[in-house]
Formats: sequence, structure tokens, C-alpha cells
Amino acid sequence: MGSDSDWSKINAVAKALDEFGVQYEVNVMSAHRTPAAVKEYTETAISRGLRVIICAAGGAAHLAGVVAAHTTLPVIGIPVPTDLAGGLDSLLSVVQMPGDIAVATVAANSGGARNAGILAVQILALSDPALQKKLEEFRASLPKKIAEKNAALQAKIKSGG
Amino acid sequence: MGSDSDWSKINAVAKALDEFGVQYEVNVMSAHRTPAAVKEYTETAISRGLRVIICAAGGAAHLAGVVAAHTTLPVIGIPVPTDLAGGLDSLLSVVQMPGDIAVATVAANSGGARNAGILAVQILALSDPALQKKLEEFRASLPKKIAEKNAALQAKIKSGG
Amino acid sequence: MGSDSDWSKINAVAKALDEFGVQYEVNVMSAHRTPAAVKEYTETAISRGLRVIICAAGGAAHLAGVVAAHTTLPVIGIPVPTDLAGGLDSLLSVVQMPGDIAVATVAANSGGARNAGILAVQILALSDPALQKKLEEFRASLPKKIAEKNAALQAKIKSGG
Amino acid sequence: MGSDSDWSKINAVAKALDEFGVQYEVNVMSAHRTPAAVKEYTETAISRGLRVIICAAGGAAHLAGVVAAHTTLPVIGIPVPTDLAGGLDSLLSVVQMPGDIAVATVAANSGGARNAGILAVQILALSDPALQKKLEEFRASLPKKIAEKNAALQAKIKSGG
Amino acid sequence: MGSDSDWSKINAVAKALDEFGVQYEVNVMSAHRTPAAVKEYTETAISRGLRVIICAAGGAAHLAGVVAAHTTLPVIGIPVPTDLAGGLDSLLSVVQMPGDIAVATVAANSGGARNAGILAVQILALSDPALQKKLEEFRASLPKKIAEKNAALQAKIKSGG
Amino acid sequence: MGSDSDWSKINAVAKALDEFGVQYEVNVMSAHRTPAAVKEYTETAISRGLRVIICAAGGAAHLAGVVAAHTTLPVIGIPVPTDLAGGLDSLLSVVQMPGDIAVATVAANSGGARNAGILAVQILALSDPALQKKLEEFRASLPKKIAEKNAALQAKIKSGG
Amino acid sequence: MGSDSDWSKINAVAKALDEFGVQYEVNVMSAHRTPAAVKEYTETAISRGLRVIICAAGGAAHLAGVVAAHTTLPVIGIPVPTDLAGGLDSLLSVVQMPGDIAVATVAANSGGARNAGILAVQILALSDPALQKKLEEFRASLPKKIAEKNAALQAKIKSGG
Amino acid sequence: MGSDSDWSKINAVAKALDEFGVQYEVNVMSAHRTPAAVKEYTETAISRGLRVIICAAGGAAHLAGVVAAHTTLPVIGIPVPTDLAGGLDSLLSVVQMPGDIAVATVAANSGGARNAGILAVQILALSDPALQKKLEEFRASLPKKIAEKNAALQAKIKSGG
Repeated sequence: MGSDSDWSKINAVAKALDEFGVQYEVNVMSAHRTPAAVKEYTETAISRGLRVIICAAGGAAHLAGVVAAHTTLPVIGIPVPTDLAGGLDSLLSVVQMPGDIAVATVAANSGGARNAGILAVQILALSDPALQKKLEEFRASLPKKIAEKNAALQAKIKSGG
Repeated sequence: MGSDSDWSKINAVAKALDEFGVQYEVNVMSAHRTPAAVKEYTETAISRGLRVIICAAGGAAHLAGVVAAHTTLPVIGIPVPTDLAGGLDSLLSVVQMPGDIAVATVAANSGGARNAGILAVQILALSDPALQKKLEEFRASLPKKIAEKNAALQAKIKSGG
Repeated sequence: MGSDSDWSKINAVAKALDEFGVQYEVNVMSAHRTPAAVKEYTETAISRGLRVIICAAGGAAHLAGVVAAHTTLPVIGIPVPTDLAGGLDSLLSVVQMPGDIAVATVAANSGGARNAGILAVQILALSDPALQKKLEEFRASLPKKIAEKNAALQAKIKSGG
Repeated sequence: MGSDSDWSKINAVAKALDEFGVQYEVNVMSAHRTPAAVKEYTETAISRGLRVIICAAGGAAHLAGVVAAHTTLPVIGIPVPTDLAGGLDSLLSVVQMPGDIAVATVAANSGGARNAGILAVQILALSDPALQKKLEEFRASLPKKIAEKNAALQAKIKSGG
Repeated sequence: MGSDSDWSKINAVAKALDEFGVQYEVNVMSAHRTPAAVKEYTETAISRGLRVIICAAGGAAHLAGVVAAHTTLPVIGIPVPTDLAGGLDSLLSVVQMPGDIAVATVAANSGGARNAGILAVQILALSDPALQKKLEEFRASLPKKIAEKNAALQAKIKSGG
Repeated sequence: MGSDSDWSKINAVAKALDEFGVQYEVNVMSAHRTPAAVKEYTETAISRGLRVIICAAGGAAHLAGVVAAHTTLPVIGIPVPTDLAGGLDSLLSVVQMPGDIAVATVAANSGGARNAGILAVQILALSDPALQKKLEEFRASLPKKIAEKNAALQAKIKSGG
Repeated sequence: MGSDSDWSKINAVAKALDEFGVQYEVNVMSAHRTPAAVKEYTETAISRGLRVIICAAGGAAHLAGVVAAHTTLPVIGIPVPTDLAGGLDSLLSVVQMPGDIAVATVAANSGGARNAGILAVQILALSDPALQKKLEEFRASLPKKIAEKNAALQAKIKSGG
Repeated sequence: MGSDSDWSKINAVAKALDEFGVQYEVNVMSAHRTPAAVKEYTETAISRGLRVIICAAGGAAHLAGVVAAHTTLPVIGIPVPTDLAGGLDSLLSVVQMPGDIAVATVAANSGGARNAGILAVQILALSDPALQKKLEEFRASLPKKIAEKNAALQAKIKSGG
């Protein structure tokens, strides 16, 4: 992520990866203030065994694009919400990439952060049957969670809530 | 894609996949007008050997989200440009997905369509060394293309263009 | 509605229906996390006697569109406010539907939620003279309410408020 | 509609009603330039046998709201596209109605105009079994149309299009 | 104004008129909920001696336009801020009026409300020399006020503020 | 106006004034390129007999604000459309004035230009009974114009247009 | 700056200049309320030894443009955040300047205010080797700061934060 | 610039520099496709005698930010217009830079491109008296140009244009 202050806005990505038992590392690194570190980190990513890189940044939000420029690994970009229309600046900076260098962009909110993790799991699961099985179990579990929330709401409404 | 009229706006995705020799199929299918076909197509995707699904739609642009709801495969969404601010409606409909169901969103223009293909290649290359090699060659070739364009521009400027 | 957390933002719809004595049911159901439940619920709606379906969702906000794809009943969509420009994402996702599948969209705020209820009443009243009578009484009562508010404001201003 | 110049942008609504054999009348009337005519037309609508009123206007786009203020009939609003971000002004003026007076808003494009007609049909069909039957046939016919478009696209792609 | 809840957001207009000793009346009246009252009030405005009408409304914000349609008096519109991008909906609904019926629009914030009052004073002063004199004194006083604020800031900065 | 290229976009203002026989002068003057001329022109406006100043500018669009800062005359601002979302930049620059210095803003299109003229007429008519009479005749003539357009449209539709 | 209330939003610019030991003066001055003071201040700037002028204003935000019109010194504009989409109005008013009169615009937030100072330092350093040296040291220090933040975050995550 | 297709949109920058006799070089270089070339070019800029760097890019538009990260020279960013709301994406990507790394942003249109050149001249002129003199002559010439345009418009209007 581009700033340590982003952590509270995007740690849902770590929680999602934890749920699936996917290993990851978290780093603060800035496309603008530490370009050399970003380059070094990204260019060595494949040799260190990384398979997906998730980047979060707000405002001009160049981190994901800069990382994507230095690796052939899939790069997922999380636009961190800002005060300018709730992160419209971040979203457009992350997603409107020119042809040839792609960034897989998710929503500019905590649901988006969670989905960055889910998307990484989906990508990894393509060549990891055990992970694919977990993913299918996760999907199968969603209706039950929604049904429980629905039941809770019905109870709340019945009791005049 | 959600409408056959989208084809001319997004066929860059097919061209990108052709460049890498990646097989694909193209279908017009509508989240709203043919929901049963979308469901059937998506739920059988894994068994038919698909590994990534790319969806393009404009306006309310629900196709990618609906597809993502029916499969654990990675889903890439291309927001098709419209007349409302150039596709801001499509972009927000595709990217602002709720937590748990992810859509990897690219830009709302032909560069985005191309990148949907590139991103699919990057994902597939994780478990396909030959494809990964092509990807690296592709990347290595980009500076030369830019250099040629630069040289052409220098010539044009020198000749008063 | 797409999430139980939406309830506090949209329960004005229930209050409006209560005022007119119109029966309704409330459910949490997600276009993305429980597509099968949404399909089942919607396809059986007519046979269960439903006559209008009101959907509320935020962000990509596909619920109303997905429901509309599975029924010929009129579908009303409430865009739930979000942090992205106050719900511009929700609004555009709900309203910018493609031709053939309509969603009757209301405002992205609690007034919109109330109006979803009022609109349902207006639709039902077309074939229910008693309801139509209530609707006319409701309309006739509005000037008095505004006049009372006006009087209260005049008093407040007079007393230096 | 608020201006005769809107006709070419919204006549898809008439075509949709024609397809279903629903009778309608078309009028140019301006919330701002002919408020008395709008009031007269709207207040006598029920007695003249109208059951749904569809309004189209651009920019400040007050027509639907003004009409809704003068009738208890369901009012459908079509935001006519403009040059300001493709009709964002029209859309917000039509949809962001205050509580108590609802406007069922559709998309700010020709698909939206068509959907205004479809929505009117859906509302009328609630108390007209023959129309409801047509509506179901219409829905049932959509997959075939999409399938034909899909087939045409496959042919075009196969022939190198 | 369209709603009594708008008062706290726009009472700067009353304060401005008080500063210049301009008489005014304040009313809550709704274009949508009390159209007859708005019409009656506006059509009798000239005969009751009103010379400028100031309207404040949020969201669809039709009040100023509806009033302008019923009078030849100058109408000033204040877009009341909302949660949708801070009142972009209100602003566009008030300002994007069609040709022939004008609304003099001010900013969607409390400075705009104040300016609605200032603008009314400027219009009235054209035929009221005493008011024109006050207006010139007001203008002449502005630099002193800014200078005082500047001095206060200098002191604050000097003291480490 | 701020640029001679704006003339074709805003000459509707001159046409409106011509219709009412109101005298006016047209000048190209730039808040940024000729600030001294703007200041001189504005500060001498009252003594030269001007009673309303209409300013048109696009983009940063400071002209109306700068003029308003140098006179107590009512200032009307026309935001000239641009390519950035159709003139959203111009609109916000003209209308979002700080408290104390008002600009009466109209729509960012040719209807807005026309309304700048209409608004000036309305302001002048407050102290000019002959002009007020013309204004009332103008208003009374609008329904006939709309009725003619309506009749033309009915004929066109009847003939299959 | 245009208003003393802006100080808390933009004092990061002063802090940045302090870090580099660059002398500056701070003034509240309004393009609209004190145009004469702005003109006087700006036209004498070069003779008083100023080399860069930084302006901050919100909303219509004309200050930087007006200052730029009165001097050939580089002018840096800080758009002060507002409630309209977080300062989109300020940003567009500052940046969308017409050709010939430039304003170097920074972000509409406190990072932008800081960058206004940094940019001024970069400009001054072009002819001040000591300042250039400080600038290079500042840049060289950034990776260490980010590394410390990264280390702090790693510790926090390790401890379950 | 990031793409050779940008040249026609931004060559006003070259024309401006030519007018002032300022030497420059033009290069196509991509932050995403040729990051190594951008880094090399930027890091050697000071030693090659460059004093200001102007970058133009559209969409995600990271070029200026990436360049700014690699040099202490002042960096000017031109957001190249796109189809998304006329370049709102480019503008926000260029201007919303985080604190510490500044980009002096100009308008997203050809006037902005011209101003990038003017701003560079203003910066260089601080330590180049001959250039400063040209700059003052340029400024002094602007009123005459506007006056000529004004005269031409007067003639056109007089002749009924």
C-alpha cells in the first residue's frame, strides 16, 4: 500500500486471505516517494515466489500501475477512498490504464478490499485444487449467511424494530 | 458481451488473445434479457474447460457481476463506453461490487478491452510456462515499439509536422 | 434489499406502505451472493400473489435489474446511498437499464425510499378503488402538513429563531 | 414531452406501446412555458381515462415532477440526454424527487425511452390479463432475438469480421 | 423554501436582507406537495408588491423553476446542499433551465444563500438610490473586514498558531 | 465575453435583448488577459448608464466574478460549454461564488444564454412599465408557440413521422 | 488565501517552506472582496522581491487566476476542499485556466498544500544551489521515512493489530 | 508524452516555447510501457542541462507523477483529454498527487498545453533577465490582441453577423 494510513481502510484484504489460508506479505511502499524500492520489490517478485500483487493507493493512486509496469504477474488495484467524491479520483487513476499494462481494479471501499483478496484466491485456485475446493465451500456458505441475516431482520421487524 | 453492438468497441480483447495464441469463444448474452442462458453458460464454464470469463456491458452493466455470482472462475469486466460522461455509468456498475463477489475491472475504453485480454493471459500464464515466456517477450518488445513511435514523431517534428 | 445494513436507510418504504394499509414482505437477498434465492423468489412472485417488487441495493446495485429480468411484475429500484459521491454509483447502476427490461427508479435517499412505497401504492390503486381513495386523501392532506410547518417556522422566526 | 425537439430522442416509447397495442396520446407541453396547460391536462387525466403518464424532459427537467404533483396516477419520467455529461442534469432533476411525490425514472437514453413504454405496459398488465399474456410472450421472445444476434456475430467473426 | 428543514441552511439570505433593511416574507411551500399554493402565491406576487422572489430547494429542486413559470418577476434560486455530491443534484436542477424561463442561480452553500440576498438588494437598488448608497457602503466596508481578518491571522501565526 | 470564439455559443442573449428592444453593447474582454480593461469597463459602467452586466466565459470562467467584484450592478454569468463534461467546469466556476459577491448564474448552454437576456429584461422591467408590458405579452405568447409545435408534431406523427 | 478559514486546511504549505528555510509571507486577500488589494499586492510583488506566489481558494476559487493575470511570476494554486464533491468546484476553477495565463495547480487536499510549498522550493532551487542540495537531501530521506512506517506496520500486524 | 497520438492535442506547448525562443526536446515515453526509459531519462535530466520537465498523458495518466518521483526538477503535468467526461480521469490522475512529490498541473485542453509552456517560461525567467523581458512584452501584447478580436467582432455584429 502507498501509505500506512491506508491500512485500516484495506485490511479486509488480509482478512480474506487469512480465511483461505493464503500466505501473503504486507508492505508500505510509495510509487512516488520510494520508486526504487517499488521497482526492486516488483522485479524480484516472481523469483521470490509471489504469484499475485495487490496494490492499494488513493488520490493520484499510481502504485498499482507502476507495479504492473514492472512485472508480468497479475496486479490487482484497490482505489483507497478519499474526500474527493469518496474516491472517484483514486478509482479513475487505478482503472483507466492504457492498453498493454493491465490492472485488475476493484471497488473503492472495504468491500473492494475484501474482493481484492477473493480475486487473488480465485486466480491462485486455478492451479490449486485444494484452494478451489475452499472457494466452492465459501460460495456455498454465502446463502446460509444471508439467510441468517434475513432471519434476524424478520425478527427485528416483528418486534417493531 | 451484453449486446452485439458492443463488439466493435471491445474486439481488442479478441485481438490480444489472438496475439498470445489463447483460445476463446465469443458470445452475446444478456444478464437482463437472457438470464437463464447466462446462468447455464456460467455454471457449466468450469466443466467445459474455461478458466477465465471476460464480460463486457454498458450502462447498468450487470453482466460481469451476474456471471461472477454463478462461478468461482476469475471474472474480468469491461465497462462499455456510453454517452453518459463517456461510460461513467458502466464503470461504476461494473467495479463497485459488494464484498465476496469480485469483478476484475479494466478501463472503459478500447485500451481497457485490450487489457482484459492481457490480464487473462497473465492469469493463465501463472500455470503455463510457455505462455509466461510469450508474456515476457511481449513486455520486452514494448520499449522497441515506443522507440519507433518516438523516432517517427522526431522525424515528423523535424520536417515541421 | 441486498444487505441487512440497508434496512435503516430504506425502512421509509415500509412506513409508507403501512400508512396505506398495503401488505408487504421484507427480505434480505443478494443478487450476487444468493442468485438462486433471488431467482426462485422472483419467479414465484406472481403465483404467490405479489403485484409489485421493490428492490434496494447500493454500489453496483444489480438487485433490481436482476429481479426485473426474472419477472413481468413492475419492479421499483431504490439506489442505497454510499460514500461514492453520496450514491451516484448506486443510482447509475439502478437506473441505466438497457431497453426491454425496465426498473422504475427513485431517489438515492430516504425520500426515495418513501417514494418507492408511494409509487407502489399508485400502481396498485389503479385497480383498487379503496386504495385510490386513500391516495387522494393523502394528497389532499399534504397542503395542511406544509401549512403547519410553515406556521411553525413563522413562529420560530418571529421569536428570533 | 417538454419540447418537440425531444421527439426523435424518445419516440422509442411510442414504438414500445404500439408493439403491445396500448393506446396513448403524445403532446408537447412545457412545465415552464405552459404551466396552465400542464395542470389542466394532468388534473383531467383520470377523468379522460388515462392510467399512466409518461413525461420526457431535459436539463432542469421538471415536467415529470410537476405532472406528478397534479395527479395520483403513476408518472414515469424519461430524462432526455443533453450535452452536460450526456444528461446527468436531466437524470438528477427527474429522479431526486422529495418524499411523497414519486416519479418512476428510467435511463437517460433511447433504451430508457423504450423502458418507459415497457414499464407502463407492466403496470397496465396488472389488471389486464390479455396484456399480461402479451408481456409474457414478449419476455419469452427475448432469448430468441439475442440468440439470433449471437449467431450473426459468430458468422461475422468466422468470416474475419 | 421547499421544506422547513432547509431554513438552517439558507437563513443567511434573511440576514443579508436585514443588513440592508429590505423587507421580506419567508414561507415554506412545496412545488410538489402544494402546487396550488405555490401558483396562488406567485401569481399574486406582483399585486402584493413583491419585486423579487427567492426560492430554495434541494434534490430535484423544482421550486424556483415552477415559481419562475408563474411570474415575470426576477426569480433567484438557491440550490440546497444534499448528500449527493454535496448538492450537485440541486444545483443542476435549479440552473439548467430551458430558454424563456430564467432562474438566477447562486451557489449551493450558505455563501450562495447570502448572495441570493445580496443579488436581490442589487436588483432593487437599481431603482432605489438609498439602497444603492447602502450597497456602495457595504462594498467599501469589505476590504476593512478582510484586513481585520488578515491582521488576526498574522497575530495568530506570529504566536505560533 | 471572455473570448470571441464564445460568440456563436452565446449570441442568443443578444437576440433576446433585441426582441425586447433593450439596448446593449457587446465586448470581448478577458479577466486574465486584459484585467485592466475589465476593471476600467466595469468601474465606469454605472456612470455610462449600464444597469445590468452579462458575462460569458468557459473553463475557469472567472469573468463574471471579476466583474461582480468591481461593480454593484447586478451581474449575470453565462457558463460557456466546454469539452469537460459539457461545461461542468464553467458552471462551477461561475456559480460557486463566495458570500458577499453574487453572480446570477444561468444554464451552460444556448438556452442559458437566452435566459441571461430574459433575466436582464425582468430586472430592467421592474422600473420600466413599458418593458414590463412587453414581458407579460411575451409570457402570454409562449403557450401559443408550444401549441403550434404540438400541432406540428401531431401532424407529423399522424403521417407516420 | 481567499479566506482566513482556509488557513487550517492549507498551513501545510507554510510548514513545507519552513522545513527548507524559505522565507514567505502569509496574507488573507480576496479576489472578490478586495480586488484592489490583490492587484496592488501582485503588481508590486516582483519589486518587493517575491519570486513565487501561492494562492489558495475554494468554490469559484478565482484568486490564483486573478493573481496570475497581474504578474509574470509563477503562480501556484491550491484548490481548497469544499462540500461540493470534496472540492471538485475549487479544483476545476483553479486548473481550467485559458491559454496565456497559467496557474500551476496542486491537489485539493492537505497533501496538495504541502506540494505547493515543495513546488515553490523546486522552482527556487533552480537558481539556488544550497536549496537544491536541501531538496536532494529531502528526497533522499523519503525512503527512510517510508521504511520506518513500514516497520511500524509490520510490528503492528505481527502483534495482531 | 505518453503516446504519440497525444502530440496533436498538446503541440501548443511546443509552439509556446518556440515563441519565447526556449529550447526543448520532445519524446514519446510511457510510464507503463517503458518505465526504464522514463527513469533513465529523468534521472539524467539535470546533468543533461534540463531545467523543467513537461509531461502529457491521458487516462490513468501516471507519467508526470512517475517523472516527478525521479527528479527534483519542477515537473509540469498536462492531462490529455479523453472520452471519459472530457478528461476528468486524466486531470484527477495528474493533479491529486500525495504530499512530498508535486506536479504543477494545467488544464485538460489545448489552452492547458499552451500554459504548460508559459509556466515553464515563467519558471526559467526567474533566473534569465532576457527571458523575463520577453515575458513582460508578451503580457503587454495581450490587450492589443484581445482589442483586435473585439474590433473584429464589433464589425461582424454591425454587419449583421
